[in-house]
Amino acid sequence: MNKNSSNIMALAPNTSNKRETVCIFGTGDFGRALGHKLIQSGYPVVFGSRSTQTSSLIPKDAEVLSHAEAAQKAAIIIIAIQRQHYNFLTPLAEILHGKVLVDISNNLKINQYPESNAEYLAQLVPGAKVVKAFNTVSAWALQSGTLDASRQVFVCGDDMEAKQMVMDIVRALGLSPLDQGSLLAAQEIENYPLQLFPMWKFPILLSLGLIAFFFFYCLIRDVIYPYVYENKDYSFFIAISIANRICPILALILLALVYLPGVLAAIIQLYRGTKYRRFPDWLDKWMLCRKQLGLVALAFASLHVLYTLVIPIRSFVRWRIISQTVSLALNNKTEPLDTTNAWLSDSYLALGILGFFLFVLLGITSLPSVSNNVNWREFRFVQSKLGYLTLVLCTAHTMVYGGKWFLSPSSYRWYLPNAYMLSLIIPCTVLVVKFVLIFPCLDKPLTRIRQGWERNPQYSE
Amino acid sequence: MNKNSSNIMALAPNTSNKRETVCIFGTGDFGRALGHKLIQSGYPVVFGSRSTQTSSLIPKDAEVLSHAEAAQKAAIIIIAIQRQHYNFLTPLAEILHGKVLVDISNNLKINQYPESNAEYLAQLVPGAKVVKAFNTVSAWALQSGTLDASRQVFVCGDDMEAKQMVMDIVRALGLSPLDQGSLLAAQEIENYPLQLFPMWKFPILLSLGLIAFFFFYCLIRDVIYPYVYENKDYSFFIAISIANRICPILALILLALVYLPGVLAAIIQLYRGTKYRRFPDWLDKWMLCRKQLGLVALAFASLHVLYTLVIPIRSFVRWRIISQTVSLALNNKTEPLDTTNAWLSDSYLALGILGFFLFVLLGITSLPSVSNNVNWREFRFVQSKLGYLTLVLCTAHTMVYGGKWFLSPSSYRWYLPNAYMLSLIIPCTVLVVKFVLIFPCLDKPLTRIRQGWERNPQYSE
Amino acid sequence: MNKNSSNIMALAPNTSNKRETVCIFGTGDFGRALGHKLIQSGYPVVFGSRSTQTSSLIPKDAEVLSHAEAAQKAAIIIIAIQRQHYNFLTPLAEILHGKVLVDISNNLKINQYPESNAEYLAQLVPGAKVVKAFNTVSAWALQSGTLDASRQVFVCGDDMEAKQMVMDIVRALGLSPLDQGSLLAAQEIENYPLQLFPMWKFPILLSLGLIAFFFFYCLIRDVIYPYVYENKDYSFFIAISIANRICPILALILLALVYLPGVLAAIIQLYRGTKYRRFPDWLDKWMLCRKQLGLVALAFASLHVLYTLVIPIRSFVRWRIISQTVSLALNNKTEPLDTTNAWLSDSYLALGILGFFLFVLLGITSLPSVSNNVNWREFRFVQSKLGYLTLVLCTAHTMVYGGKWFLSPSSYRWYLPNAYMLSLIIPCTVLVVKFVLIFPCLDKPLTRIRQGWERNPQYSE
Repeated sequence: MNKNSSNIMALAPNTSNKRETVCIFGTGDFGRALGHKLIQSGYPVVFGSRSTQTSSLIPKDAEVLSHAEAAQKAAIIIIAIQRQHYNFLTPLAEILHGKVLVDISNNLKINQYPESNAEYLAQLVPGAKVVKAFNTVSAWALQSGTLDASRQVFVCGDDMEAKQMVMDIVRALGLSPLDQGSLLAAQEIENYPLQLFPMWKFPILLSLGLIAFFFFYCLIRDVIYPYVYENKDYSFFIAISIANRICPILALILLALVYLPGVLAAIIQLYRGTKYRRFPDWLDKWMLCRKQLGLVALAFASLHVLYTLVIPIRSFVRWRIISQTVSLALNNKTEPLDTTNAWLSDSYLALGILGFFLFVLLGITSLPSVSNNVNWREFRFVQSKLGYLTLVLCTAHTMVYGGKWFLSPSSYRWYLPNAYMLSLIIPCTVLVVKFVLIFPCLDKPLTRIRQGWERNPQYSE
Repeated sequence: MNKNSSNIMALAPNTSNKRETVCIFGTGDFGRALGHKLIQSGYPVVFGSRSTQTSSLIPKDAEVLSHAEAAQKAAIIIIAIQRQHYNFLTPLAEILHGKVLVDISNNLKINQYPESNAEYLAQLVPGAKVVKAFNTVSAWALQSGTLDASRQVFVCGDDMEAKQMVMDIVRALGLSPLDQGSLLAAQEIENYPLQLFPMWKFPILLSLGLIAFFFFYCLIRDVIYPYVYENKDYSFFIAISIANRICPILALILLALVYLPGVLAAIIQLYRGTKYRRFPDWLDKWMLCRKQLGLVALAFASLHVLYTLVIPIRSFVRWRIISQTVSLALNNKTEPLDTTNAWLSDSYLALGILGFFLFVLLGITSLPSVSNNVNWREFRFVQSKLGYLTLVLCTAHTMVYGGKWFLSPSSYRWYLPNAYMLSLIIPCTVLVVKFVLIFPCLDKPLTRIRQGWERNPQYSE
Repeated sequence: MNKNSSNIMALAPNTSNKRETVCIFGTGDFGRALGHKLIQSGYPVVFGSRSTQTSSLIPKDAEVLSHAEAAQKAAIIIIAIQRQHYNFLTPLAEILHGKVLVDISNNLKINQYPESNAEYLAQLVPGAKVVKAFNTVSAWALQSGTLDASRQVFVCGDDMEAKQMVMDIVRALGLSPLDQGSLLAAQEIENYPLQLFPMWKFPILLSLGLIAFFFFYCLIRDVIYPYVYENKDYSFFIAISIANRICPILALILLALVYLPGVLAAIIQLYRGTKYRRFPDWLDKWMLCRKQLGLVALAFASLHVLYTLVIPIRSFVRWRIISQTVSLALNNKTEPLDTTNAWLSDSYLALGILGFFLFVLLGITSLPSVSNNVNWREFRFVQSKLGYLTLVLCTAHTMVYGGKWFLSPSSYRWYLPNAYMLSLIIPCTVLVVKFVLIFPCLDKPLTRIRQGWERNPQYSE
């Protein structure tokens, strides 16, 4: 459903007569914002507050009563107060018996308390049906109506009927409820809005480190060296030439790092002779962020493509070609076509294009909506077969790029090899080990281990 | 699940013996199409019709009975007739008591009637359980089996069990049911298939207007002016050169228009001292279509990239460079490298590449399946932080592109400044105001206002 | 919800005291893997096995009992044994009465048995509530915790409550349950993990065939012909020049093949005078894989764009331009600008850019998460209107590319026309027929037929 239309529709209060009263405990910002929105969507709203004198901040059409009075007016009570004040609900236990309590609270830190706020609430008021909801929605977004971001509201609770009632309210506000099961899921739902790309931290920090290293490496070789020895100012290389050297290097290294943990895991399993022991922690974490590593690699590969394609428009390149042509003309020379060179140049470009193309395909299949539409066998085919093919193509692209001067001594400046040669170390290692693992003498036992066979069954004791 | 396979499976009637009879009132096109599909999926189908003589159009395996007889044979009755004929159901009220009535009707206009067709049906036959479904599916698609588009069927109704029964039928036909809650959602579901990109209208009309303006502006400056003063025919500039001038201008202006309403909203809130008053209507609407504005801007940016990258293959550009080189060679000149120029050219390209890269990232995060997988904090980070960074990079890209002749009088033709200079007005304004708003003396009160604080509480009375 | 976090959270057994015991019949690989994962998620697990002596492979914290004893300890029993051994459950029928039996089995072939394993299980133990689940999850992925692929678990079953219990377990393991309705869906769910891109087979085989044909065609014209007649070695053309000739040809042909079946269907319907007869089987299948055909075409178009944009960096192209310039300079000539040529070159590029841009738009709207957010009317607008516009632009792009030497005899080598001319046959046919079908004398009856009208009603008897 077009979500914006849903939002517009929800503002039309033409069905207000049918909605049931909703009670909100607490007149803080989120409570008021939710109250406003509920009134707009046609719900009668009653606030429960310590001081029953109408505050000017509270929506005009809402009633303000004491907690006990307000609770009696509605079947659903939204608890818009902080966890540390929940204990004021204990004396109200009798009135709250059988009511649906909606816990919308958030914490300041991940796993701040041993049990989730919703579970704590359920313990305090055992007779009520506690439902966790709305904590992932921002008060500001609710207020301004500009819910551009996710309209998903995670809902969990042990009572199915209570959950359905809350989900109906969520839908009426123009949001999409997502049933997350029983109240056990509350902890996770409360942690959710506190995250900031947790799986992306390692890949991004790693890239930043590698960028810094290769930036200075290339700066020394490509800017400082010619400045020292030839007194040429190539400082403008920083903008494009060096960036276009760093990007493909990072793309290749990070892509190889996506496949390295799989290879390591295979070696560990072969050594141990079982799959029933957990991998070391670092390997587990590494494996969990492979998708993110791959996507960062794809980002660098895309930048590399853009940087490469603008080469002919660069004023430096135009100047170089023009002055080269002019000097050829002045010297009255025409060079014949060097077929080997044409082969090398064309096949290095073709390998790069095909590698990038497959890389983008891999990226597209990792979009949530696409990967949800393929089964496990198809996903394995794409990510493993196509993934290794991409790695092979990209490694070959880099090698052919080196071409004739791959190991020529003239390409060493201050004993530093060309940067792209460093980038080949990890991918070549991964490909060689993977190639060895394909041999039947290693592949067969590995397959058996992954099907549950154990070499030394006592290991799992 | 692979949806196509689902469709193929549904055709296999190997489980027909278990399906319950479904009754369809009305033998119009959609009723027949649905009947065909139900029979293919193994459901016994009985039609209820005024004239019980079997029409040749009705699927062979279906029975045709009078309305009353047909209704008695099934627990689920699909009402495939138009709303204006619903009152013929009133005499059947007794027979329909307890039955599940599926309303599949659509209207011709949005909000054509005060209440939705499904709610009207529920009023007419109070004893029946009304479920709204199938109205978003096309009869033609159902008939031809080519359901390439959305297979989602929105379902709503007040009776959970009736809804489940209808959702099971939806699944059996190879479609995906989507529970939209109680019957109150019917109005929205009925409006849904009538929309044609409602949120895209404003951004697209605005772009068309801007395209027309800048097209004539560039035509005058770049084609007519040289024709009048230098008698040169540059009419072929229309195909690429002028298009590549319009696209970046539109991309930059539209991107700035995405961030302008946020800045205006902040000023309004600071002025009013409260967040509890609604924004003017135009601002609300503007804010709701920011995503669409941004995506149209991204489309223009992508076109700009493509137009720019083909520059070196254009025969005009090749001719210009060759004749320039030849004239240099004939004059026996070689120019030295202009480092400042190289710096300007390279950094303008680099800024453009980085800006475009971030812009694409923003576009990817606005894909529904991606934005549903990030929480509010992450979404704000991407859309606000990265968004402003994109705007800064793209504005800088345009400024550096101007380079040395930014304000030189020679770039004025008929007192018209270069078109890109006009495109800088809005982005620079937005960035300056945003920069001012970051100062603590303004940021602090704004933050407090957004957390619910009010300067003059009487405002909200 | 961030799915990775969900996975991490599920490992924390801080809520173990609340989980209900789960029984697993069978100690094979998948049973053990599931047992491990359940224990990690805080479920007490009891295995039912023929030999009750604790195997070292079984997770330490799990109990191993006889089948009968184990079944009595839990309300949910996961049947982790193969279908051919299901009959051992018959003697246990009394103990299993009222229990939830989870069928997780898979077959080796699609539609291996007449009824699904889950339905067979339900027949064997009529008193139990059978739920199909978990068969789409891989044991290896469950074990290693690296569930990068789809976390969706398809669940179906006739008992709502039993289904809910299983779905809660699925969520607790960090996976997303997807309700697929009643047990009738089991066959489809069992077939699902056995598929390998079934809808992609035809488009990919077709492309491979076309690639082979056009590769040899171009090889003969562009490499062998100049070698024979001019003794020039253009073998390096294989890497880019020939690839860049094959890609656009395939993109155009496949795009036209997306629209050809629609045109054929219209002709068939006009001829038959009804829409109520099924199309021939090949047409049905063709229509079902139009989306895949279009996406393969888009892939070739993207490769064409990349191959085209690297042209100016190719060393052969640089050599050609430099030697051309040098010879011009040596002959002391400067050619004037050929405006017609500039127009042709620029408009062919512009048409290509716009065509590719619309093509990418079509591709984006076919992403599941995007196409689920548009209604039928919007989808038809995009896929039909924009689709034909794309086809028109791409055909025009190819025609203008031919330009002046479109039918000149010099472009025939060994009587073979240029390859791009072959690629124009199908698109031109489709466009001409479509153009004819738009005439009111044909469009009107077609529209009426699609609305359910029949010319010769006896046809449907």
